[in-house]
Amino acid sequence: MTRVRMDLFASLDGYTPSDASPDNPMGEDWGRLTAAWASTRTFRERIFGDTSGAGTAGVDDRFGREFFEGIGAEIMGAGMFGLHSFPDDAEWKGWWGDTPPFGTPVFVLTSTAPRSPIEMNGGTTFHFRSTPVEEVLAEATEAAGGRDVRVGGGYRTARAFLRAGLVDDLHLMIAPIFLGRGHRLFDDLTGMDQTHTVTSEVAESGTIHVTLTR
Amino acid sequence: MTRVRMDLFASLDGYTPSDASPDNPMGEDWGRLTAAWASTRTFRERIFGDTSGAGTAGVDDRFGREFFEGIGAEIMGAGMFGLHSFPDDAEWKGWWGDTPPFGTPVFVLTSTAPRSPIEMNGGTTFHFRSTPVEEVLAEATEAAGGRDVRVGGGYRTARAFLRAGLVDDLHLMIAPIFLGRGHRLFDDLTGMDQTHTVTSEVAESGTIHVTLTR
Repeated sequence: MTRVRMDLFASLDGYTPSDASPDNPMGEDWGRLTAAWASTRTFRERIFGDTSGAGTAGVDDRFGREFFEGIGAEIMGAGMFGLHSFPDDAEWKGWWGDTPPFGTPVFVLTSTAPRSPIEMNGGTTFHFRSTPVEEVLAEATEAAGGRDVRVGGGYRTARAFLRAGLVDDLHLMIAPIFLGRGHRLFDDLTGMDQTHTVTSEVAESGTIHVTLTR
Repeated sequence: MTRVRMDLFASLDGYTPSDASPDNPMGEDWGRLTAAWASTRTFRERIFGDTSGAGTAGVDDRFGREFFEGIGAEIMGAGMFGLHSFPDDAEWKGWWGDTPPFGTPVFVLTSTAPRSPIEMNGGTTFHFRSTPVEEVLAEATEAAGGRDVRVGGGYRTARAFLRAGLVDDLHLMIAPIFLGRGHRLFDDLTGMDQTHTVTSEVAESGTIHVTLTR
């Protein structure tokens, strides 16, 4: 049975930085927020191709391994794919090089005219959709073939799925910092403690992993 | 060496309910927010006089025992004492009956004309002050005789001390719920992760205990 999964970074005061862009003034916040995650052995191997075994191996890494397991399709916003940063580049193929780390169909939400699908190395194919999120989710679920669908981000895409009540498993990685600026992520979660079971675990890094499971 | 301590309740989305009053519309939120704390063995014994040993005995209760240890003086706002709820009752002596649980001098901040001190049973004396918080803190520190000073609340008093950088040890009890309303507590903590060491621990109840120590 396919579940809809989402993994988000937040500060203790509930902020997530603005979406990334080449000249992103929030880059420093993103770095602080995701430092522990980017230091895990699994992330280093899966994203950076570092097979040396370097990186942390505790609670953060256990969540890291679960992050990469069982995903059959991915959904992301145009901003996360890079369409907002390079609107005039018809050849833009995302930030991830020739072999993106997804290895599945990836559905990119866009309000502009959808581009043709882009087939990459390693099993990733980017599809572009301007249909409602429920329709894209149905299509992604079909494509996932019984595995799970991840809603990857950015913030506007996450918010749309959260507010529509479409997320079965939400994994919040709360860094022990107070940003004091950014998007107010927690505003979109009001009421989720009524529909989901909340559990929390503190990693060696100080990151608080909060999971909400329907 | 006296330390200035503060213990606060917050929801995961960083809200603390409005100050209590007899017809408090946020009563339900307070109940949900403090349920785990009020269920501890230590709280039941110290606040309700329940010496039967009933109540929870895990992580929440360990923090409960620490809460009551080593305090030599207390500071609270007029609202927490009850002056806003009963402004015309010149005989008002607080919500806690003839033997309040403090057992120390308690300095009540008030913007109206200070009342005379009120000596209660069990070592509690209420003093009323309209001087700046730094002066009240100096007086409370003197009265604490080497033990710690607690800034008890409510929200406006907590905010004044936090914003002035006067709190050495902050203990946040974050309940795994999203209130979506109330005072935005975390706004007053921005930057505290730079001046304090942050540690977190999850209790059996799901409460996330976050401590910030200078």
